[in-house]
Amino acid sequence: MTPSLVIVGTVALDDVKTPFGEVHNALGGSAFFAGISASYWTSVGVMAIVGSDYPSKGFETMKSRGMDVAGIEISKEPSFHWSGEYGFDLSSAKTLQTDLNCLLSFKPDISKIYPAVHTLFLANIDPEIQKKVILDLSVRPSIIALDTMNFWIENKREKLLDVLKLVDILTINEGEARMLSGESNLISAARIISAMGPQTLIIKRGEYGAMVFNRGKIFLSPAFPLESLKDPTGAGDSFAGGFLGYMASEGGKDDATLRRGIVVGSVMASFCVSEFSSGGMENLSPQTLAERLSEFSEQTDYRPVSPIMGMLGG
Amino acid sequence: MTPSLVIVGTVALDDVKTPFGEVHNALGGSAFFAGISASYWTSVGVMAIVGSDYPSKGFETMKSRGMDVAGIEISKEPSFHWSGEYGFDLSSAKTLQTDLNCLLSFKPDISKIYPAVHTLFLANIDPEIQKKVILDLSVRPSIIALDTMNFWIENKREKLLDVLKLVDILTINEGEARMLSGESNLISAARIISAMGPQTLIIKRGEYGAMVFNRGKIFLSPAFPLESLKDPTGAGDSFAGGFLGYMASEGGKDDATLRRGIVVGSVMASFCVSEFSSGGMENLSPQTLAERLSEFSEQTDYRPVSPIMGMLGG
Repeated sequence: MTPSLVIVGTVALDDVKTPFGEVHNALGGSAFFAGISASYWTSVGVMAIVGSDYPSKGFETMKSRGMDVAGIEISKEPSFHWSGEYGFDLSSAKTLQTDLNCLLSFKPDISKIYPAVHTLFLANIDPEIQKKVILDLSVRPSIIALDTMNFWIENKREKLLDVLKLVDILTINEGEARMLSGESNLISAARIISAMGPQTLIIKRGEYGAMVFNRGKIFLSPAFPLESLKDPTGAGDSFAGGFLGYMASEGGKDDATLRRGIVVGSVMASFCVSEFSSGGMENLSPQTLAERLSEFSEQTDYRPVSPIMGMLGG
Repeated sequence: MTPSLVIVGTVALDDVKTPFGEVHNALGGSAFFAGISASYWTSVGVMAIVGSDYPSKGFETMKSRGMDVAGIEISKEPSFHWSGEYGFDLSSAKTLQTDLNCLLSFKPDISKIYPAVHTLFLANIDPEIQKKVILDLSVRPSIIALDTMNFWIENKREKLLDVLKLVDILTINEGEARMLSGESNLISAARIISAMGPQTLIIKRGEYGAMVFNRGKIFLSPAFPLESLKDPTGAGDSFAGGFLGYMASEGGKDDATLRRGIVVGSVMASFCVSEFSSGGMENLSPQTLAERLSEFSEQTDYRPVSPIMGMLGG
């Protein structure tokens, strides 16, 4: 059976150093994090490429989450490898090294494995691959979401603009939204980016949450605050995965569903960053998820506003 | 009649330069901004000192907002003068010059003018003055809130710690919370700061909103996003003023009232930054305030969460 959400992106091995420790060849990659996160909410298939050095633990982790890994190609080249470091405030990664390796020969043919896709997430990867995936599908998915990064905005801007015309939802961080639009103000930036194609723009603001522009409406969501935060790697991917997993499961794309999806994404990202690699997202019970969600809801609740309106004579 | 909210702080003249223009000798000061903002919600008295050069327009502006200015002393020295500049992203001010002038001889005697105060706001000023004000009152106010800044944390730490023991609510920004506590993580920082005295800590995060720690409970509030933002000067003071104006008017200090107060503060700060000086806060109708509040409420609404809970079997 075709999974409700298909994610195309990277499955990688990461070396990560934060003030709280370091890991080598840890499980990582945009599609890996997004998939693990989404797997709590819907059926997930991943399309990616790994090397023959990719550990069986990676496949086992994904399979134990019920993910379909039939679309993960195994290359003779080594796996994509990323190495990065975070400073005291954990706010941004410094990339130390990127070895594309097998990623250079990644040419996914989605139609062979998933000819009909309900929700498609093009996680961070070369925009030419993202475009090929969309064009390879004879029936357009109900939702196409895309994530990208500063590297593609700077180095493959035209290709990125090409694929943006074809997607419904774009997720990027604040700095990237400014870079892509050339505008410092995020409301102005959102208007420019929406005109490039995506009717929904989700601006990720890390520990500050997300700012969503959906067909002229704004939604603001804080991030769940954590006292013990170990490794931000994959936070944005987990956010997007949780969000799209929820959307795929609901089936709808109205504004109310989208807002609840953003909240789900925020909750999932908070689990992701609590441990290195995917350690914080591997064994979450429905009860643990429900508790975090309740806590988030409690931390953002200030209603009713009627007592304030009353003072204004309303 | 004693106003419900008494604010002690600075009334100043500012030179401000932002990417959108510049002003000279504009009306400013912590007590000025907080007072104008609070005046929409409760009766306000201001205690401050100005020089003989302070323009009558300043007094007229405050009086037109119904503020009691009987506690503003007029000195022979020139007014306190601040000069600052904001860069492209408006996120933080670079102080170019600070001339304390008459502020050096400010020795307010609150008991002479307001012997009984319901809500007291000690806006940003020397912590020794803040402490004197509290000690001069024979009856403790129902709510004492205090704002401070990096300068006092660095240069008068012991005096600041002295006065913090006496207050209920502290408002500071993120960097200052880290500086005061010596902790990078804000939840850890909040625990340390609460042990210094204030049972409620309000961390101001500029365009990202506020994070509130109230007796073990966390409340997260986004900021209202603006496309046209001209001058951030006074945003934090206007936020605190709106918050405390609402609290003073409600009379209560339970968590629900406090959360609504934070929302009022966020709304008021959004008007403050929309024009230079207090221009954005001078003529707001109840309808304009209610509209902004409705819009904020709409932008932060994602409830009910029951459809998410339903997926978790709850």
